[in-house]
Amino acid sequence: MSIDNIDLKSRGPSVGLVETKSFTFAATPADALPLECGQKLSPVTLAYETYGTLSPEKDNAVLVVHALTGDAHVAGRHTPDDHKPGWWDLMIGPDKPIDTNKYFVICSNCLGGCKGSTGPGSVNPATGKPYGLAFPVVTMGDMVQAQARLVEHLGVSRLLSVLGGSMGGMQVLDWALRYPDRVASFIPIASTARLSAQGIAFDEVGRQAIMKDPNWNRGDYYAGQPPHAGLAIARMIAHITYLSEQSMREKFGRRLQCRDGYGYDFEVEFEVESYLRHQGDAFIKRFDANSYLYISKAVDYFDAAAAWGEGSLVRAFERLHPATRALVISFTSDWLFPTAQSKEIVKALQANGIHSTFVEIPADYGHDAFLLPNDQQENAIRSFLSATLRQIRAGGWHGGDVCRHENEEARP
Amino acid sequence: MSIDNIDLKSRGPSVGLVETKSFTFAATPADALPLECGQKLSPVTLAYETYGTLSPEKDNAVLVVHALTGDAHVAGRHTPDDHKPGWWDLMIGPDKPIDTNKYFVICSNCLGGCKGSTGPGSVNPATGKPYGLAFPVVTMGDMVQAQARLVEHLGVSRLLSVLGGSMGGMQVLDWALRYPDRVASFIPIASTARLSAQGIAFDEVGRQAIMKDPNWNRGDYYAGQPPHAGLAIARMIAHITYLSEQSMREKFGRRLQCRDGYGYDFEVEFEVESYLRHQGDAFIKRFDANSYLYISKAVDYFDAAAAWGEGSLVRAFERLHPATRALVISFTSDWLFPTAQSKEIVKALQANGIHSTFVEIPADYGHDAFLLPNDQQENAIRSFLSATLRQIRAGGWHGGDVCRHENEEARP
Repeated sequence: MSIDNIDLKSRGPSVGLVETKSFTFAATPADALPLECGQKLSPVTLAYETYGTLSPEKDNAVLVVHALTGDAHVAGRHTPDDHKPGWWDLMIGPDKPIDTNKYFVICSNCLGGCKGSTGPGSVNPATGKPYGLAFPVVTMGDMVQAQARLVEHLGVSRLLSVLGGSMGGMQVLDWALRYPDRVASFIPIASTARLSAQGIAFDEVGRQAIMKDPNWNRGDYYAGQPPHAGLAIARMIAHITYLSEQSMREKFGRRLQCRDGYGYDFEVEFEVESYLRHQGDAFIKRFDANSYLYISKAVDYFDAAAAWGEGSLVRAFERLHPATRALVISFTSDWLFPTAQSKEIVKALQANGIHSTFVEIPADYGHDAFLLPNDQQENAIRSFLSATLRQIRAGGWHGGDVCRHENEEARP
Repeated sequence: MSIDNIDLKSRGPSVGLVETKSFTFAATPADALPLECGQKLSPVTLAYETYGTLSPEKDNAVLVVHALTGDAHVAGRHTPDDHKPGWWDLMIGPDKPIDTNKYFVICSNCLGGCKGSTGPGSVNPATGKPYGLAFPVVTMGDMVQAQARLVEHLGVSRLLSVLGGSMGGMQVLDWALRYPDRVASFIPIASTARLSAQGIAFDEVGRQAIMKDPNWNRGDYYAGQPPHAGLAIARMIAHITYLSEQSMREKFGRRLQCRDGYGYDFEVEFEVESYLRHQGDAFIKRFDANSYLYISKAVDYFDAAAAWGEGSLVRAFERLHPATRALVISFTSDWLFPTAQSKEIVKALQANGIHSTFVEIPADYGHDAFLLPNDQQENAIRSFLSATLRQIRAGGWHGGDVCRHENEEARP
């Protein structure tokens, strides 16, 4: 999630120059997107990027889903001068694990976001002003429904795979559960079927920091000063949870920033303090505080077992397509979405006879490990996608009695 | 640390009605307390309580040191109507582990605090107004020096034991290192010889939350509105670190506060959110934001190895009195001061041949476990204190060549 600070060295050839496009649907109230909260949204715009080419059989589309503060720009550069490529450029490109010579890659900014998709900072057609708190509280399921409209628009009726880390992994699970016939495989990474109480607690303190900033003004700040102080605090709290104790010890330890001894004041002093303040300062330049409230709330709400299985994940997964394949990835030092939560997913998949591969990757970097170069993750995703495509092309996916969910539009 | 929320059921007889007293020293500038930052402080008042009776031999004094937000009121009640007893009442009283029939117990509010001891909210004699940021940045060592003056004042030249949890444990270590001949034994509980980078990070975000609250006003708020919003955020962040993921799961899980389903708004919704807000609201009524800044900074600064051993804890402990006995206690689910940090202390003690006992106690409650009823902790402390007193009375402590530090006033 902390893409501000990660050295995204481009490894291997790049997808090159890319552009963020827009797809608008639900343009009229009659066609509005129904949301889980009961409200409807119209119009809805998703910002998205695509790389590679959709095959004539339309069987090679891979949907990448971003984490809490990500965006549609997952690979390549917008201009030749761009300082950094997209946030997962190491994973996506010609000959990379998600090989754009083979796959058609789609990534969109989530509903509720602030990177080109409709969110609380968008203009409310009813008032001509930004929604602010008038924006409806959206869920992972709403985000997935909106993505599904984009995927349809791109001519894809079944995704080869949908994959993503952290909050992205929650949407990955929702995709497989909501549209079992439209997902040949799925890869939740460093994720969970439901956020822990501790995770909700950290999110809530971040939201409180934003909402207690006087500049927040009950979400109505777009004409004035945004609640930058609160948003920076929220980011700093979250950022600690993305790193492991060990990686912080190795990266910063108790080293002082630029002094020989203690300063005996409250200025920046330890390196880790400087790092955190930098994270907060960088984040407020690129993110909207209201979007942070909405998206973190959607993360807290997500509960695949409650939504699809009356509290049982095993029961929820009964609705998966039996030929669906899953690759579940976790990282040893991730304490925000710990391995035990990925194992819970794997066990529930196996209880339903779903072909699933589980990889727990030794990594010191904490939750953020999924965004960093890691041969084991790259190899696992590369082989899994190849095998899935081979299987589909060998006719193995829709063989047998596997169409029980066909034409069924699922809502929890 | 989170004494707001702990059910301090009085177990067994109580010390009864107690009162907080005051001891003022360094009354004139000539007698001012020299601080590690280079400044001097005058006058200095410590609020303290004592229970039990000092023996004629003056060999039964036990100093209890509080954690970040504690105070001198560790046992008994101030009035018969008091809702709660002192913060460690379960540990201190007649026939309790720290048995007031046997021991003379002392507890003082730390220097920099806001519970009767001199701190940033005290009147600055130079201006006649509260110090605010003009208060010097104090350290664990400064707190210990001030306590030492109180202990002298009470007629105690050598403590039977000094014990405390969390930040209290840091002062315990500093006591043993600074005054090796004045500490017959010491018990650091759920503590560390130096805070981790992760711990500093959490403290720093809490301080930022306070300092970015407009009401903070660079520490000058005593005549107006205190920075309650920022202080509540700081407390909520810290509180999450005092609990374990497991205890939060068991205590709250994903249960909703008082609704059948999601509210789709940003009001209190999950039980854990309600709990955290309550923690924040309760805390601002009892604590001063500037004291929080100063004391948390002292916690971050503490590094026994750097201060006393040029970076080596083994070397630091060379200065301990060879007849000193140590009991080191940690709790399995404490991720803020994890067992590994207690083990580091034990190994460095053992490398110096110091008689030391290490107890890692299985407990689900996280860092706060040391404040809760726990037979294993209670028994360990009870036996350790008894054995230490027996040994001293048998003449075992100052036998042999153990007086090498006599008359040596140590400063790092």
